[in-house]
Amino acid sequence: MADTVGMELDFVSRLIASIPADSRLEVPPGDDAAVLRPPAERRTVVTVDMLMEGVDFVLGADCTPRQVGHKALAVNLSDLAAMAARPEAVVAAVALPRRGGDAIGRGLLDGMLACAAAHGATLAGGDTNAWDGPLVISITALGSVPPGGAWRRDGARPGDLLVVSGACGGSLLGRHLAVAPRCREALVIAGAFDVHAAIDISDGLSLDLSRMIDASGVAAVVDLASVPIHADATRMAARPGDGRSPLDHALGDGEDFELLLALPADEAGRLVTDGPRLTGIPFTIIGEVVAGRGLSARATDGSTAPLAPRGYEHAFEG
Amino acid sequence: MADTVGMELDFVSRLIASIPADSRLEVPPGDDAAVLRPPAERRTVVTVDMLMEGVDFVLGADCTPRQVGHKALAVNLSDLAAMAARPEAVVAAVALPRRGGDAIGRGLLDGMLACAAAHGATLAGGDTNAWDGPLVISITALGSVPPGGAWRRDGARPGDLLVVSGACGGSLLGRHLAVAPRCREALVIAGAFDVHAAIDISDGLSLDLSRMIDASGVAAVVDLASVPIHADATRMAARPGDGRSPLDHALGDGEDFELLLALPADEAGRLVTDGPRLTGIPFTIIGEVVAGRGLSARATDGSTAPLAPRGYEHAFEG
Repeated sequence: MADTVGMELDFVSRLIASIPADSRLEVPPGDDAAVLRPPAERRTVVTVDMLMEGVDFVLGADCTPRQVGHKALAVNLSDLAAMAARPEAVVAAVALPRRGGDAIGRGLLDGMLACAAAHGATLAGGDTNAWDGPLVISITALGSVPPGGAWRRDGARPGDLLVVSGACGGSLLGRHLAVAPRCREALVIAGAFDVHAAIDISDGLSLDLSRMIDASGVAAVVDLASVPIHADATRMAARPGDGRSPLDHALGDGEDFELLLALPADEAGRLVTDGPRLTGIPFTIIGEVVAGRGLSARATDGSTAPLAPRGYEHAFEG
Repeated sequence: MADTVGMELDFVSRLIASIPADSRLEVPPGDDAAVLRPPAERRTVVTVDMLMEGVDFVLGADCTPRQVGHKALAVNLSDLAAMAARPEAVVAAVALPRRGGDAIGRGLLDGMLACAAAHGATLAGGDTNAWDGPLVISITALGSVPPGGAWRRDGARPGDLLVVSGACGGSLLGRHLAVAPRCREALVIAGAFDVHAAIDISDGLSLDLSRMIDASGVAAVVDLASVPIHADATRMAARPGDGRSPLDHALGDGEDFELLLALPADEAGRLVTDGPRLTGIPFTIIGEVVAGRGLSARATDGSTAPLAPRGYEHAFEG
């Protein structure tokens, strides 16, 4: 990792100095790289997510650098949760705006450290850069699972039921920043239930579900009446000019960072019954996995129709 | 890792499809995260480096996306080399310019895949984003070392001699893009010599040396006449208006990605003698570690004077 000198040294030194000692680190932060002691007899799970100012957030009164630091780490931890992985270590690379970058860096670090501590991960190092562009932060999170223990998105089978944790939609009213990754919940579920497939809801319930079933080579039917709609989705739909239903918001808003799981029917029923006591959050059966390809929706009258996956999409020109 | 749909899907699918199968991957690329089988009885070494268009490179005829992909990975592998770590796996996050991003992404991927293959690392996944800003690429590299086997920058002791691989200076004439990380050389040296401290020369020989001695709590004296000067440094110094000596270039240009090592005197002598046969590259003793703090230079007449660390620096405003 490249560290740097000049005014930025403050940030790097502060970062290094503020990292709590952790027995998982054989070489402490500040060297060319971090050296981790991987837990014995476990696999290493690794994920990376980059957030860019103006795309994923807009710095300002409603979005502080601390919140960005939290979110950048939390979305990565949500990917670990989607694999049923225990968070272990984190490294971060940032491109800080030259103007005000020192204060921004301090806020980012505060947000990252608090989030890492809350989920048992150690901040192992990073790369700090300054430029004239917008803030960019890329975090890589390392977790661990027992051999063969990682949840995959390609294991859904016909007959499985689809279960979602919590509720969806309207995350833009605040949850998109105060991301609460389902790390602990995932570990509890992995220890007590037979999960065939899992994904976290980052880009939109219907879009992420379509990814799971496409990867699994199966189809799915969503019972529209059973989709758990977050109160934020209802509030957003009620705003003048919104023009979308609460269900629309729940199916397509994304950034819910809930778990979407496929389990055998009896396991799904048990998860709905016992999950709240074990994890403190509700679980809802929203549909079933069937043979075939593609996503469809069942209305309250029992009729089904194709359901177009909706959610956050990037796009290129030319 | 967030993947995305739309035109970008091409890039993500191509990335995933073009990753060679690797027995180190328990879950293949394309899931929420990669699952790696860490080598038994070894530590995990992790490093991250971000490159930004306009700061670290300028895309154009002299710098293609493929070269950027190569460099972004190679500078991370150089950090692994500086720890004597064997490259294992790599993940990449990119912010692609919306305009032309698809072609840029393809070039980046080609450069990364070739570099990863050349050094025995597997590309395990990534996060692809599009925006209206410049190209940003952040790579995290994972390596492995035996317990206690990682080279550190804080182990230099008075009496050690300082050894540099290859030659320094003038990297802007081409080597700053065609980075050749000293991964294999580092593993050979680690297996045959007692190295007390190591760092890679990324920002400048004198600056990186100052980091090593500061971390080690020692001082160093550089014999100016012995610094190996790259032919590119001589060529740069000869350019009209350059105004710097070849030695100046060697001490401060950076991006040499050579190894700077501190070893006991007898080991350093053996490395200079046997290193070329073992690794195919030359090694040169450039000075010694002494008690105290700070960097000084010894001229050919034997006089010493403080040597100001020079190299690439970031800086913030306000």
